[in-house]
Amino acid sequence: MEVKFDKQVFGKRVEKCTKLMKAEDYVVLLLTKPSNMYYLTGDGRLCAYTMITAQGQVAIGVPETDGDDVQELAHFDNLATFKDEIGMIHSIADFYKHFEINKGVVGLEYTFLTNSMLGMMTHPHAKPDAVIVKDCTKIMSEMRMVKEPIEIELMQDAARIADIGMEAAIASIKAGMTESQIAGEGEYAMRQAGAEGFWRSYVASGVRTRIAHGIPTNYKVKHGDIIIIDLHPIVNNYSSDICRMTCVGKASVNQVRAYETYLEALQNTIAKAIDGVGMVDLEQTLHGVIQNAGYGNNIFGPPIHGIGINFEEAPLPPGHAFFHGEKAPPPLVKNIPIAIGNCGIYTKDWGVRIEDTVVVGKDKPLILTTYPYDL
Amino acid sequence: MEVKFDKQVFGKRVEKCTKLMKAEDYVVLLLTKPSNMYYLTGDGRLCAYTMITAQGQVAIGVPETDGDDVQELAHFDNLATFKDEIGMIHSIADFYKHFEINKGVVGLEYTFLTNSMLGMMTHPHAKPDAVIVKDCTKIMSEMRMVKEPIEIELMQDAARIADIGMEAAIASIKAGMTESQIAGEGEYAMRQAGAEGFWRSYVASGVRTRIAHGIPTNYKVKHGDIIIIDLHPIVNNYSSDICRMTCVGKASVNQVRAYETYLEALQNTIAKAIDGVGMVDLEQTLHGVIQNAGYGNNIFGPPIHGIGINFEEAPLPPGHAFFHGEKAPPPLVKNIPIAIGNCGIYTKDWGVRIEDTVVVGKDKPLILTTYPYDL
Repeated sequence: MEVKFDKQVFGKRVEKCTKLMKAEDYVVLLLTKPSNMYYLTGDGRLCAYTMITAQGQVAIGVPETDGDDVQELAHFDNLATFKDEIGMIHSIADFYKHFEINKGVVGLEYTFLTNSMLGMMTHPHAKPDAVIVKDCTKIMSEMRMVKEPIEIELMQDAARIADIGMEAAIASIKAGMTESQIAGEGEYAMRQAGAEGFWRSYVASGVRTRIAHGIPTNYKVKHGDIIIIDLHPIVNNYSSDICRMTCVGKASVNQVRAYETYLEALQNTIAKAIDGVGMVDLEQTLHGVIQNAGYGNNIFGPPIHGIGINFEEAPLPPGHAFFHGEKAPPPLVKNIPIAIGNCGIYTKDWGVRIEDTVVVGKDKPLILTTYPYDL
Repeated sequence: MEVKFDKQVFGKRVEKCTKLMKAEDYVVLLLTKPSNMYYLTGDGRLCAYTMITAQGQVAIGVPETDGDDVQELAHFDNLATFKDEIGMIHSIADFYKHFEINKGVVGLEYTFLTNSMLGMMTHPHAKPDAVIVKDCTKIMSEMRMVKEPIEIELMQDAARIADIGMEAAIASIKAGMTESQIAGEGEYAMRQAGAEGFWRSYVASGVRTRIAHGIPTNYKVKHGDIIIIDLHPIVNNYSSDICRMTCVGKASVNQVRAYETYLEALQNTIAKAIDGVGMVDLEQTLHGVIQNAGYGNNIFGPPIHGIGINFEEAPLPPGHAFFHGEKAPPPLVKNIPIAIGNCGIYTKDWGVRIEDTVVVGKDKPLILTTYPYDL
């Protein structure tokens, strides 16, 4: 699927952004998170920044090598290029001057900037003294949470490619392969099928299925191992998230029972992903089935997260949100994509988990990832 | 290559760490960067922390799912597990109490923690009021910069696998393939050959070779395109960095001339990577050849960076170091691995770049990446 966003799309988004800015008295946002910059301008890259003024002016700064490329890809009013960090800082200061901003609140992404990067963006040479800084994470999250129809279409494409990756990974598995090789099969298939990249893949097998973040290792899967595979392709800048399990040989009776419980919990939760549902309702539905089956002490992890340009973005579950600089999620509405199944049932010797990307619908959910659930 | 670090290795590293801590009056380091945690304990994972006291006590906190796994992999004195962020914060507070630390300076990694994560680690419930925080990036960089012989061996293995990835990527190329598919060939070969993962791959072709960070796209390479490929496998937790170029068909006379200039600059610089050389000397050598050939206005990017567990780590070039929370690099000594060739010659329509991983030697450099330089 070839995608061209209309220039007007970015104009409308910037307009919406300025309304949110004014409501919270920001005079400018100074963004460096690629997904946020992409959303507002059509381009988001490393070592770059985007300034949005409350009047809706858009300024971009990029390495001097990237000027012509950005000119082709992005929508903006002003462009600066720089040679190094010092040039970057000075170009930011120049934009403050150009926009006649010498006081007020500038929004920075506290959930993206490391403390040392924050120091750079607020360097005395980078901004007027009287400009003070505040976290603008919540503004960008609020903007991006409900997706436009074209964004949903792009995510459908990303989900199609997640299914392809999962099929390739599972089809490849035989005893003696490493977890890393299994991940490689899924990733390779996704790039072949049209993904321009992917977020970190997880493959964990045997006893490693019990850990929270099963980054692939060179552990060789053996007969009787269950395997968790979690893939997140990026296709036309949009992400999807799928997790499935399989087994070399036959899973144990206890594993099958836990897996079937988790699947039931997932499907019940997906069914409730309709307009007006609360994130906590969804969590309780998922946890409820698991608890009722006697696995109440085996649940770990926040079960749901938003997804879009980033594979984890707002809405996040309330507790998680607080510590990650996000607002507690409002009731979910149509066209908010979420990944359901981010937690698992974990025992001392193994764990089970299944995850799908789903869009909250008016009357029923739109399920994007469709690879079969067979263990 | 199967690797087992001796328990004593970690004991010695912790001892060295406490000396550096005492010299700067830290009472404790509270680390969350996986590479730093791995270096000191043998395990570094997501959503975890490691506390090192000035007395050399080591405490680890991990998700409750991960307790048994960490028990097998890490060297430590105390282990806490937690269910969520609130549990994490409280477990940190408990360790302060356990170690009877109620004042003094705690070191945090300002170059790794986002501002919101920093807020979590310094939450009033996470630490005693009188404990103040400071960036400890430089301590960890100083510790890790000069590698132990076993680390060099591991990096040789990572470089061998980088060569394998590069060979596969270049062998695969034909007109009509996407940049992403080319990246996929290199990544797949590295996972097959023993990499447990890799840092972000770069593949840029045609006019996209002019940009600073050529993240792969679905652009299809066509006859006459030059292609930059930059790969960074992770093997047994250690990284290597290789960049090579190739062409579908034949590069232009101007491209070949720039490429040969860059290669000469790289090789002259590599030859100087011996005990006592300054990072700035190396930069000037590389830039000098490029300037003398008339490309003085076409250089972009800091040309050299350290490499080890992370594919970019200390030493960094002075200007870059300042903005990234690192010290200006001291004269380089034997067993500091560096990646040379991180900058490029960039024109309006294309760019060239070649990069190798090299270890500073006593009398001559040890060149780790060896894939041929043919354009």
